[in-house]
Amino acid sequence: MQGLSTPMRAALLPLLHSRSAVGNAFPCLSNRGWVRDIGLYSKSIRMQANPAQKFCTTASAIGSETSGNQDRKIFANFAFYKGKSAMNITPMKPIFKLAETGSAFIYKEGALFLEIAPAVGQRKYDWNKKQVFALSVLELGTLLGLSPEEGCEFYHDPNMGKSDAGMVRKVFKVEPMADKSGYFFNLAVSNKLDKSDGRLSIPISKAEFAVIRSAINYIIPYLMGWHVIVDPLKLADCMPSKDLKSDGPSLVKDARMEWAK
Amino acid sequence: MQGLSTPMRAALLPLLHSRSAVGNAFPCLSNRGWVRDIGLYSKSIRMQANPAQKFCTTASAIGSETSGNQDRKIFANFAFYKGKSAMNITPMKPIFKLAETGSAFIYKEGALFLEIAPAVGQRKYDWNKKQVFALSVLELGTLLGLSPEEGCEFYHDPNMGKSDAGMVRKVFKVEPMADKSGYFFNLAVSNKLDKSDGRLSIPISKAEFAVIRSAINYIIPYLMGWHVIVDPLKLADCMPSKDLKSDGPSLVKDARMEWAK
Amino acid sequence: MQGLSTPMRAALLPLLHSRSAVGNAFPCLSNRGWVRDIGLYSKSIRMQANPAQKFCTTASAIGSETSGNQDRKIFANFAFYKGKSAMNITPMKPIFKLAETGSAFIYKEGALFLEIAPAVGQRKYDWNKKQVFALSVLELGTLLGLSPEEGCEFYHDPNMGKSDAGMVRKVFKVEPMADKSGYFFNLAVSNKLDKSDGRLSIPISKAEFAVIRSAINYIIPYLMGWHVIVDPLKLADCMPSKDLKSDGPSLVKDARMEWAK
Amino acid sequence: MQGLSTPMRAALLPLLHSRSAVGNAFPCLSNRGWVRDIGLYSKSIRMQANPAQKFCTTASAIGSETSGNQDRKIFANFAFYKGKSAMNITPMKPIFKLAETGSAFIYKEGALFLEIAPAVGQRKYDWNKKQVFALSVLELGTLLGLSPEEGCEFYHDPNMGKSDAGMVRKVFKVEPMADKSGYFFNLAVSNKLDKSDGRLSIPISKAEFAVIRSAINYIIPYLMGWHVIVDPLKLADCMPSKDLKSDGPSLVKDARMEWAK
Repeated sequence: MQGLSTPMRAALLPLLHSRSAVGNAFPCLSNRGWVRDIGLYSKSIRMQANPAQKFCTTASAIGSETSGNQDRKIFANFAFYKGKSAMNITPMKPIFKLAETGSAFIYKEGALFLEIAPAVGQRKYDWNKKQVFALSVLELGTLLGLSPEEGCEFYHDPNMGKSDAGMVRKVFKVEPMADKSGYFFNLAVSNKLDKSDGRLSIPISKAEFAVIRSAINYIIPYLMGWHVIVDPLKLADCMPSKDLKSDGPSLVKDARMEWAK
Repeated sequence: MQGLSTPMRAALLPLLHSRSAVGNAFPCLSNRGWVRDIGLYSKSIRMQANPAQKFCTTASAIGSETSGNQDRKIFANFAFYKGKSAMNITPMKPIFKLAETGSAFIYKEGALFLEIAPAVGQRKYDWNKKQVFALSVLELGTLLGLSPEEGCEFYHDPNMGKSDAGMVRKVFKVEPMADKSGYFFNLAVSNKLDKSDGRLSIPISKAEFAVIRSAINYIIPYLMGWHVIVDPLKLADCMPSKDLKSDGPSLVKDARMEWAK
Repeated sequence: MQGLSTPMRAALLPLLHSRSAVGNAFPCLSNRGWVRDIGLYSKSIRMQANPAQKFCTTASAIGSETSGNQDRKIFANFAFYKGKSAMNITPMKPIFKLAETGSAFIYKEGALFLEIAPAVGQRKYDWNKKQVFALSVLELGTLLGLSPEEGCEFYHDPNMGKSDAGMVRKVFKVEPMADKSGYFFNLAVSNKLDKSDGRLSIPISKAEFAVIRSAINYIIPYLMGWHVIVDPLKLADCMPSKDLKSDGPSLVKDARMEWAK
Repeated sequence: MQGLSTPMRAALLPLLHSRSAVGNAFPCLSNRGWVRDIGLYSKSIRMQANPAQKFCTTASAIGSETSGNQDRKIFANFAFYKGKSAMNITPMKPIFKLAETGSAFIYKEGALFLEIAPAVGQRKYDWNKKQVFALSVLELGTLLGLSPEEGCEFYHDPNMGKSDAGMVRKVFKVEPMADKSGYFFNLAVSNKLDKSDGRLSIPISKAEFAVIRSAINYIIPYLMGWHVIVDPLKLADCMPSKDLKSDGPSLVKDARMEWAK
């Protein structure tokens, strides 16, 4: 249990994009996972007033600091929990830059992050062992276009074009179920750098795929940056943050680089 | 008639989320139901200037208090009226919380509330006897994925994981019509706590299902909280309100807990 | 020509919702119609600087008065021009009202206005003879659900429930083309009040229907008022304006009352 | 190489709408193209701090000047790179004008610009030789309605209705692949004014078409100006800018005039 997630730790340590998430054992936050945990742990949360107050902020409180929201990290993971594994999907925003003329142009399209973690007990998942795959807009289009009997396969090399190209190899494969009632999502990562290998799989039902399809349809124009065309005020949210300016390696950078090939 | 809804009472006592709605006999507000009632009661409304003025506010008035809108309760029910029953659908927003780091993360996904009430006369429905079912994002995905000859069935226990688990049992069942011209929506609730049982059904035509499908497709990303990813300024609207911090039971809490299993 | 529309008059006299549009001979503004007219009349527009300046306002000018936009009438008609007739579609916003508690609730759902006018020359349409039909959300759902070989038919009585019920009778009928390449939209209005009768028809190709379908899918949640749920700041735009508080009859009121039956 | 694009020049000289783009050899900015180029040129970008800083602006910087975003030109091209050519799609906003009454009406619907450029080396495209085609809302509807075995064809004359009508003739043709795995997009332009002829073609896979379809569905209501109906605050972004008031010819004007026939 030591290395696994508890809701209290999850609540106090949002982490998806933080570097510490890579090496440590913090879970990926998840809405329904969290709700479920509240069911299990509701007593401790409701009785221990302090921890709850620490991360609770009412609408009026945040309302007074609304202008600061564009610098705030926001996590809206959506998770699918199954017997042997769980999958999270979460969008990563596109990045615009300004030219000297003052015009803004899209610099990197966004991506949909897909994370699969193995189960290590009933309704317990070890997000420390998760594998991550960043789906590009075109790959999402492939998922949208799948018929019930079709599958697809994508290969990513996060280090493509760099000196350590080929050291990490990721394969994401979607296979239709024999009875057309859904798909298997398979993610295999072979990492020669840290000598780790991972192979995770999760069944996705027709209903779950309908949610994924609806979410993809909604998010594609956002990942393309077209929401900024429609509403220029959203440009500020899509400018590079200070994190991305750091020159060290980070999970986010690497993941998005996967499909920058 | 005493226990039933009249448009005037509906107008003056919005209630969906108020606790009094549970025990009292106030109807669920509904746009078209209301319009229709205006037809029937137009004389009283137009002649009795006072009641109308009480709940009328012009755009300019509300415009000056726009910044307060995030604390305002907003009801946009959409209703389907049939001979023996009526059905209301209304979205319930997702809830985000802040961590100490200042990051926001989704705490509870939203839901689509579905309410069915029996008819008690021509175009009169007893919302006091309504049954409520909170559809999760994944259940909405199931509805999206239905073909004309398919059905589905969901079971909810609002008290799951609590001491009174199993006391209330809800079953929502969608059955395709024999001629594929639509579906029957059936909602059965057996409540051992207040010894009440309810079984309501409503026919939904293909056209009505197209509206429901369009509404579901629109609302899924919102229920997932992804609209906050796309527009961080909307975070303030999705922070917990003071109501949800009250520790007493409420209709809303229970209903959303249904699928937090 | 006297009674017909010219682009200059259209530009200077926006009118769709004004009462004078009923009895007078002003056209319905239309984007592409207007663009086309610019082609034909480009010389006069470009040379006569004054009229152009009268209705031109640059982005910076309107930017400084942005806060006033919620009181501004906005027209975004979309037109289909054919040999014998033209059709316009334009959304009409839903109306919310405030209860004494401060809560806002939807009071009237919005509608999609459909206007058909007869041709009176090459690319000239007499909008004075147009017929109007206000499609409700459920009727739009019917259009969404149509297969290529299906049709549908709606009946409206703008005076339903009033003393002059039955005096005006509107029938909107969608008929699939024999070769499934599109639909015929037929609108018949018999008005015993002003002893006028009208019967207009327009062919809608598969491509045009795809645009209509896309527009309907986009606008349904708006007509339901759900965009206010998603963004409470939009409430101000959906509050009753002063026009609607006038007690006299108006085209808009009547048209929306059509389906308030 | 002299006349071709390099990412550094692209970054410093955003140009899509500038007149100089017509005669000079600047590329069309592209998100993924840019990302890819970062891979190839990463060393120079990361080492030469100055150029990078010139066009980098952090979120906090742009946040403080948010109100100026409506005058800022925003480019969010989305590109498809293939062996022999590349294709860019980018939306062009609709234009509203104000009447003397203060009402706003749509003056020109928007368009989806489609640009195809020939390859001149591995992953190098000569955007100087690109051909441009502005797809109208109805033409986009035609694309939406295509089945896997259908095609379509559009003819544009940018000078229609003017003295040099017929001098430039553009034909955009979509042909289904024999195996239904996608489409060929063909663009042929014959220009008697500058005696240039161009014929470019690009294969579009089923997945790519799914992205295009998703993007079209998202952008159609925007091109129709209906986003301003839903959110009147967006009116300011759709008012004519000073550029459009210039009386000289420009690429943008011409391109949009193509379908103003």
